[in-house]
Amino acid sequence: MTHLPTEILLVEDNPNDAELALYALHRYHGSTQVDVVHDGAEALDYMFSTGAYAASTRESNPKVILLDLKLPKVDGLEVLERIKSDPRTQTIPVVVLTSSREESDIQRSYELGVNSYLVKPIDFEQFTEVVRLLGVYWLHHNQLPFLKSIFPAGE
Amino acid sequence: MTHLPTEILLVEDNPNDAELALYALHRYHGSTQVDVVHDGAEALDYMFSTGAYAASTRESNPKVILLDLKLPKVDGLEVLERIKSDPRTQTIPVVVLTSSREESDIQRSYELGVNSYLVKPIDFEQFTEVVRLLGVYWLHHNQLPFLKSIFPAGE
Repeated sequence: MTHLPTEILLVEDNPNDAELALYALHRYHGSTQVDVVHDGAEALDYMFSTGAYAASTRESNPKVILLDLKLPKVDGLEVLERIKSDPRTQTIPVVVLTSSREESDIQRSYELGVNSYLVKPIDFEQFTEVVRLLGVYWLHHNQLPFLKSIFPAGE
Repeated sequence: MTHLPTEILLVEDNPNDAELALYALHRYHGSTQVDVVHDGAEALDYMFSTGAYAASTRESNPKVILLDLKLPKVDGLEVLERIKSDPRTQTIPVVVLTSSREESDIQRSYELGVNSYLVKPIDFEQFTEVVRLLGVYWLHHNQLPFLKSIFPAGE
């Protein structure tokens, strides 16, 4: 666990997709601190300081959560619902970043309060461009509340 | 009223700010169809086809609503609440575009379900850059549900 404030939480089970996203983030947003979790249960533990993250002393929330939908253990839509229905986490921007163009996924994501829904381009250059753009938008322009929601260890 | 599908609804009471936003949108997103409303009551009439818009036969929702907060008649936060609490409009992305950096405005906007909160830069070039960026992001990359929410005239 890092002591630098995390700017992006990347929730991605596919190692290739995670590596590609990290490559693009570091290429265009070099100093950005990114944490990666690999399934929906780990994402919830990370956000709510439970399970393996119970001793976490994260001092701030990420500026944006990039959330895949097709995740092991707990589905991405359920992760989204939990984050957006809890006052401690509801103000954190969540961007779905997925290969799914299924209408039901898109519709349900908006109903649950997703901030934005991006489809992963298959083309490498287009994918890195989307990651560059979302970094510029959510890290450098979108304004957040002063996030007070610190989860003390063990809460 | 236009017969081309509206891509952006701009809710802005300050004529200078509206003109500047339209200038930047047309400079970078030339063919974009933008409708402008000038207070909160007109924004609600536009979105729910009431009042002066009761005879409107809008066939689709805008891809994004750019919402100022300090508005006459009905405040921007109330407009946001109405849009995000009605199943007919809740999936439409709303981006607050305001000069307010007040913590209470930012916090409340996120609690009400705003998709993103942008502070208007005072500098002209920075302002046009923000408008260019939000156009690229919300018009060309963000994925929407196939909006079925057509409001028949008089509903």
